[in-house]
Amino acid sequence: MNLTTFVSVFKQQMLSKNKINFILSLQKKKAREEAKLFVIEGDKLVKEFLLAKQPVEMLIAKPEFLNSLPLFHKQGIREVIPAGYDNLKKISSLKTPHNALAVVRMPEIKMDPDDITGGLTVALDFVQDPGNLGTIIRAAAWFGIRNIYCSENCVDVYNPKVIQASMGAILNVRVYYTDLKDLFRAALKNKVRIYGAMLDGESVYSHKLCKTGIIFLGNESKGISEELQPFITDRIMIPRISGTGTGIDSLNVSMAASVIFSEFTRARGRQG
Amino acid sequence: MNLTTFVSVFKQQMLSKNKINFILSLQKKKAREEAKLFVIEGDKLVKEFLLAKQPVEMLIAKPEFLNSLPLFHKQGIREVIPAGYDNLKKISSLKTPHNALAVVRMPEIKMDPDDITGGLTVALDFVQDPGNLGTIIRAAAWFGIRNIYCSENCVDVYNPKVIQASMGAILNVRVYYTDLKDLFRAALKNKVRIYGAMLDGESVYSHKLCKTGIIFLGNESKGISEELQPFITDRIMIPRISGTGTGIDSLNVSMAASVIFSEFTRARGRQG
Repeated sequence: MNLTTFVSVFKQQMLSKNKINFILSLQKKKAREEAKLFVIEGDKLVKEFLLAKQPVEMLIAKPEFLNSLPLFHKQGIREVIPAGYDNLKKISSLKTPHNALAVVRMPEIKMDPDDITGGLTVALDFVQDPGNLGTIIRAAAWFGIRNIYCSENCVDVYNPKVIQASMGAILNVRVYYTDLKDLFRAALKNKVRIYGAMLDGESVYSHKLCKTGIIFLGNESKGISEELQPFITDRIMIPRISGTGTGIDSLNVSMAASVIFSEFTRARGRQG
Repeated sequence: MNLTTFVSVFKQQMLSKNKINFILSLQKKKAREEAKLFVIEGDKLVKEFLLAKQPVEMLIAKPEFLNSLPLFHKQGIREVIPAGYDNLKKISSLKTPHNALAVVRMPEIKMDPDDITGGLTVALDFVQDPGNLGTIIRAAAWFGIRNIYCSENCVDVYNPKVIQASMGAILNVRVYYTDLKDLFRAALKNKVRIYGAMLDGESVYSHKLCKTGIIFLGNESKGISEELQPFITDRIMIPRISGTGTGIDSLNVSMAASVIFSEFTRARGRQG
């Protein structure tokens, strides 16, 4: 597509009421799954997705934003729709919209059982808060963990709040939804250890942490569900220094994840 | 106050329009500072504040919640106002209100310069996101850090979103607002090290971490401001394992805080 056709496409597209409703419908998981599409918001995030050559179906943005994009970024986009603040506000899930919003095709992610034998993997049981899942994805990306397995009742990774919290890290981490029992059975068969974060576990500072293993974290208030606890081979915990006191009964699951990922990283460095 | 008078107080109080407006006004920092009051929301949080004998000026809650409180919890409260869902929704900062909301008097917190010489302290420069400050408070409480010094341009600790994110941890951590330069000068005079989280720092896994020191973290996107960098005695960082890639240019400041607090804790254990 050369510049002339691009500009003409530019003129033809507009944000119809149908499109507004369609984009808004993607805030719901069911609609996302039917359309195999999800929404990302924010200048930086949209640019990162374009840079990573993600399949962007629709880009709705202020003309200034569109003009700031290099042409080759725009070439893969099926529809480009310039919009002002008011229209962006109509389609945004945020109180104050950013300058750009995009509708992106979900990647097809195939599970590869070998993934669990080649390093660290994360398993999440019933993590419900979108901010927590997003933050865990971001921490995983930082610490070089590429695969996160979620129980089916975890919050959807394409929930707008998960995307916001994970930032571009979602581009570097694959998130699967599966029956964790199957995952754990495969792990145990391959002698992969399952490190469960449990309040009665051994200190993560002293427990032996292997280079390969599954870091397993549970629900924000209930922890790891009882039926999954028997799969744990190593119970680990982050020691609390504060003694007892009102209001500090647990670390947030995403903070716990960051600390545990960090400890595995440190241990790995020490080993090799 | 015996049960009879309590019940009669119960009947007299109601949620007037004036009170609704006053409670809503406390969502703004200026009004909070003038009134020296702030708002907490949530069954668990309100109970924790009552248990910790905090000066609750007003408790607005569903009758079921009020009935579930032990009498001695209610004795210190100046006004108890039963309310239904609709009234709670009117005064809540949340989309879906909890069963209880309380207006609490701010504690008078006096800075004690000796605080910085007796263990770990946190200093925050221009941390703007309320969720981040709340999470850092929660992590500090877990790791036994009692004092956080914020630059004047940090988000207000009594912002409703900070309180939500910190949970009851705010009861265990003192948050001061001050000119960080004064704090750092006092620290250096007392030979207290200042550990600044900087992307070009030395790995926190290998750098020597003392039992006493100030852990210093900067703004979410800009890091530590230039004028404060000269005070840093030790530049530390959390090594990134992921290599380079789109979308992982930094760890969230609250995740970084959790990991660094954890490393100091581990180092302290090793020393002793």
